[in-house]
Amino acid sequence: MTQPRFDVLCIGNAIVDVIADADDAFLDAQGLIKGSMRLIDEAEAERLYGVMGPGRELSGGSAGNTAAGLAALGCRTGFIGQVADDQLGTIYRHDIQSQGIDFLVDPRGDVGATARSLILVTTDAQRTMNTFLGAAQLLSAEAIDHSAVKDAAILYLEGYLWDPEGPRAAMESAIAEAKAAGRKVALTLSDTFVVDRHGPDFLRLLDEGKVDILFANAAELASITGQDDHEAGIAKLAPRVPLLVVTHGDQGATAVAGGERVSVAAEPIERLVDTTGAGDLFAAGFLAGQSRGLGLEPSLRLGAIAAAEVIQHYGARPEADLTALAGDLLQPA
Amino acid sequence: MTQPRFDVLCIGNAIVDVIADADDAFLDAQGLIKGSMRLIDEAEAERLYGVMGPGRELSGGSAGNTAAGLAALGCRTGFIGQVADDQLGTIYRHDIQSQGIDFLVDPRGDVGATARSLILVTTDAQRTMNTFLGAAQLLSAEAIDHSAVKDAAILYLEGYLWDPEGPRAAMESAIAEAKAAGRKVALTLSDTFVVDRHGPDFLRLLDEGKVDILFANAAELASITGQDDHEAGIAKLAPRVPLLVVTHGDQGATAVAGGERVSVAAEPIERLVDTTGAGDLFAAGFLAGQSRGLGLEPSLRLGAIAAAEVIQHYGARPEADLTALAGDLLQPA
Repeated sequence: MTQPRFDVLCIGNAIVDVIADADDAFLDAQGLIKGSMRLIDEAEAERLYGVMGPGRELSGGSAGNTAAGLAALGCRTGFIGQVADDQLGTIYRHDIQSQGIDFLVDPRGDVGATARSLILVTTDAQRTMNTFLGAAQLLSAEAIDHSAVKDAAILYLEGYLWDPEGPRAAMESAIAEAKAAGRKVALTLSDTFVVDRHGPDFLRLLDEGKVDILFANAAELASITGQDDHEAGIAKLAPRVPLLVVTHGDQGATAVAGGERVSVAAEPIERLVDTTGAGDLFAAGFLAGQSRGLGLEPSLRLGAIAAAEVIQHYGARPEADLTALAGDLLQPA
Repeated sequence: MTQPRFDVLCIGNAIVDVIADADDAFLDAQGLIKGSMRLIDEAEAERLYGVMGPGRELSGGSAGNTAAGLAALGCRTGFIGQVADDQLGTIYRHDIQSQGIDFLVDPRGDVGATARSLILVTTDAQRTMNTFLGAAQLLSAEAIDHSAVKDAAILYLEGYLWDPEGPRAAMESAIAEAKAAGRKVALTLSDTFVVDRHGPDFLRLLDEGKVDILFANAAELASITGQDDHEAGIAKLAPRVPLLVVTHGDQGATAVAGGERVSVAAEPIERLVDTTGAGDLFAAGFLAGQSRGLGLEPSLRLGAIAAAEVIQHYGARPEADLTALAGDLLQPA
């Protein structure tokens, strides 16, 4: 087989993040649960935007952030996500393309406005996300570039996008295409609310052998396994997927594949600013390692390094030189 | 006279900053002069945006930044600047209003797109600005809220806006209105390219007694006086305006009013990140001091504190609590 065109092809919500500082009292007054993500409609997006503080706009979206991290680590990366033909859509596409990532979907004029997530960052660096999906939820199966899917070593999917019906069908077709082409499929569970709604569906995908690499954080692991105990959750989920990666915040991360199990500590940081994107960049680092043929331990360490970089500044895309931070880890064994 | 509605009313270009990292080689390849500001048309804006790196979008504009600093320091502040009826215009207006600043101009649907400045930040924290004025240059005299101008203790104008013809006429009418109402007028020279084009016009304003407070940095001072020697420049310009404020980067700042002359050192900083907005925030701090009836020395120190905050992060609007940083300085004598 010739070398595929992409190391990783990411499919996800194309969302511009609008990041503002907020205090606990504001979250309380708005009835928001700190650290959560909720979907909101356009009216609520306008209402909340009207009362929140001044924002910084940065391209985001879970799989988009992962794509940015992959590109920063030297991986050949593609991205599929729907934007509208508007200013935020132009910004989103620019930010993807300017990092050398192939943006594989045309903007559309009939899908309302480009998605945005109103992200409130409290002084403890927690992010509370309020996402208006807009155009992103109108990604259709027809928009999927099938030749690109077939020509990517790993297809990476964000669980968030499993929620709206059209993108779910689009991802199902992409999964089928990738598997038929002998490619690997990676999935992140994204959020407990996604697991609450689609847990059985994700377990079905696992049992059908459609997912090769599964990413979950501690809360998502507990939610999908029904096990409050972290170790019990890993023991329950690991046998159902070839490679399970569980992140556990500042307690580090664990990967289980076949009989092998490896854990790494979190990378030390100087100052925690904004945890937005931590999981996305962990996935980027881990997949970059896997793409280079590295083992579980160096792949986990790459994930930890990429996550540590992104939580030390506002925004969910890397700002420092990730390849430099990775150092010797990126050299093939 | 009853207390005016505004401590300061700012008129300026309503510009969204698009901030990206760049290296010297990129500036060279694009033929850009580091540290400069140039005006570009929409075609050049699209071309340059297409080749520059991923951006962070933050509301900017010189007088808008000053308004944000004034509001953060507790001043009752208004802002006049033209935005289009588009997503960037909505963002700009939100960021002004969410800081408690009165946004006094309606968005227009017939003025093209909202202005943006493509700002390339090099690792030495210098900013090279490429500004597409768009809707901002279509601010008209009819858009000026005359009752607001009459009801502001200080009218603050950015020199940048002197360049396009319509806004210049709008500002001339605002100056006349402010002076007739017995208010003070403050002007910043903004940039050497503005001084090159409009220096004689600014000197005419000074000689007609239409400017009470003039802000200039070292380069602008040299340009408008024709004096390369900093002290000679101050000596030449100070007699022509009631209050002259000259900033000199990390060498501090000087104010001259009547027979009094005061200099302060720059505030110490931990890490220089992005000098965008340094002069704008210096003006905010100084005017906040003047609004409280403080003397030249504490007003200069407030300027230095506000400038030091803004150069330690990306973007030209304050992020830390300026009032807390100002401490006892903001207490009236």
